[in-house]
Amino acid sequence: MKLANIKTIMMLAQLVILPLFARVYAQTDTLPSWNDGAAKKAITDFVKTTTEKGSPKFVAPEARIAVFDQDGTTWVEQPMYTQVVYCLERVPAVVKAKPELANIEPFKTVLSGNREAMAKFTMPQLEMILAATLTGMTVDEFTGEAKKWLAIAKHPRFKQLYTDLTYQPMQETMKLFRANGYKTYFVTGGGQDFVRVYAEKVYGVPPEQVVGTAADTKFGYDKSGKAILTKVPKLLLLDDKLGKPVGIHLMIGRRPVATFGNSAGDQQMLEYTQAGDGARLMVLVRHDDDKREYAYGPKSKIGTFPDALMAEAQKRGWIVISMKNDWKRIFAFE
Amino acid sequence: MKLANIKTIMMLAQLVILPLFARVYAQTDTLPSWNDGAAKKAITDFVKTTTEKGSPKFVAPEARIAVFDQDGTTWVEQPMYTQVVYCLERVPAVVKAKPELANIEPFKTVLSGNREAMAKFTMPQLEMILAATLTGMTVDEFTGEAKKWLAIAKHPRFKQLYTDLTYQPMQETMKLFRANGYKTYFVTGGGQDFVRVYAEKVYGVPPEQVVGTAADTKFGYDKSGKAILTKVPKLLLLDDKLGKPVGIHLMIGRRPVATFGNSAGDQQMLEYTQAGDGARLMVLVRHDDDKREYAYGPKSKIGTFPDALMAEAQKRGWIVISMKNDWKRIFAFE
Repeated sequence: MKLANIKTIMMLAQLVILPLFARVYAQTDTLPSWNDGAAKKAITDFVKTTTEKGSPKFVAPEARIAVFDQDGTTWVEQPMYTQVVYCLERVPAVVKAKPELANIEPFKTVLSGNREAMAKFTMPQLEMILAATLTGMTVDEFTGEAKKWLAIAKHPRFKQLYTDLTYQPMQETMKLFRANGYKTYFVTGGGQDFVRVYAEKVYGVPPEQVVGTAADTKFGYDKSGKAILTKVPKLLLLDDKLGKPVGIHLMIGRRPVATFGNSAGDQQMLEYTQAGDGARLMVLVRHDDDKREYAYGPKSKIGTFPDALMAEAQKRGWIVISMKNDWKRIFAFE
Repeated sequence: MKLANIKTIMMLAQLVILPLFARVYAQTDTLPSWNDGAAKKAITDFVKTTTEKGSPKFVAPEARIAVFDQDGTTWVEQPMYTQVVYCLERVPAVVKAKPELANIEPFKTVLSGNREAMAKFTMPQLEMILAATLTGMTVDEFTGEAKKWLAIAKHPRFKQLYTDLTYQPMQETMKLFRANGYKTYFVTGGGQDFVRVYAEKVYGVPPEQVVGTAADTKFGYDKSGKAILTKVPKLLLLDDKLGKPVGIHLMIGRRPVATFGNSAGDQQMLEYTQAGDGARLMVLVRHDDDKREYAYGPKSKIGTFPDALMAEAQKRGWIVISMKNDWKRIFAFE
């Protein structure tokens, strides 16, 4: 056999065989940050049985939609939603541009730095802050501002960038779904435009796969005649509770087959997911690890997990993840 | 050389070399239904220069978003939008379920079959028909009804299914974009839920890539306790004119790099596309072929193409497709 032939075989063999090896390797443990247990098994079994040809639970490639809540499901939501921190920290810049706000509530309290007083803001007061910090600029300006803040802002307890506070086990779960032909979406109560700023870089979820609470925009032109979109304080979609299935239908137009959440705000989208035909996976993350993260539940203001939700999960056969027991590692920086 | 070795080489070579041949073949003429000319060249050049590595106009794979208007851009919109025909033809079924409507306008006129009188409906009357035929049922029921109708309803002039009245040159264009890593979206003034019923099968555009005029839905439960979404007569997004860039931002969250339209309703989304950085392609289809399709323009009620739009296209360097001159073949059934 000529050397050239051997080389050809070697070269072709590499092209064909190496990817097979890579595949086998990838299958050894796709969820290394998970402890073995019912939750891990339910997830890996679901992905396997819905994607293996000939499986009775096979899901057609185009129908493979997996949706994830974000705050509390794929990253830390305590002691305050990251986006709310962003809005509060934007207030000084907003007041600088509009000095008349300095002596008006709730801006006055925000400027004072009194966290205790801020915790008592009423909903209309919070809405004033959201409107002042999330609207009134073009969508490109907003993206630029949020990106700058996310590059430096750190969490008070973990002293890490907020974008480094994602849960490693959920990152692995999202990757496992994508590696098997699923499109992964966020369906978040948080601001759609805010989450879109970092979702692609941080989670591998592109902007067009982020469904969230959305304000309207207004089309117009800048001084040079260039077309622009300006964010305006008019709510288009409140993507929480009953609004989550509505957001899913509006933005995706298909019923997901797998849905991950962590609070009462996710209950309806889990129910909506389960009401479809064929294989379904409904999962809730339970925060029960005050050492490595937080333990909260029925009485928490953020990420409420009432006993009724636990009862519903048990009745309907939903998977409940215990962060304490099911997750070997929570953060990549550990 | 042993036979086994030769067999191995042949087998491996097939795996490696055949796809290359397929690629070369595909590159011979990706737009066979187009006549050679400025429009065809602009499109093929754009796809080539935005996807070739090292090209100064290279567009990153994740930013490759191409959007298409539907009515009049990728299928026939004369003498009446297909969805309006659907709504009118649904009226008898609606009246059967609610007999009290039989003697109320505009339903009475629709039942009479008097097309001349129907053409004079006011906007509020049309809205009554849309509300009665597009809302009040679950999203799954709506999809089922529309699918049944689309399987049999034929165009009065061409005597073909509406779904067979897509423009072959535009089908090829959408495929060319997708073959080069672009995601193709519809951004239509038509009903988002209606277009989603057939877009995947007819155009290869999945539901999650259809942006259109959208009504709200309401989450609830059926008698058996199953989660359902019901279509309600409340407009969430009017995806036309100024509303198209708003819809693009809401649903896609990225500025498209290529946009195809055919009327004044598409002007703002072409402007919005052009206002981005880097390579951009803005295209308008002009209906000037009354023999093979229709010739209409400034005075048409449907698909208006005012002289001001033509002036804008010339000023801004948009490509204008002449159906008569640029398209060798219009329909697949020709």
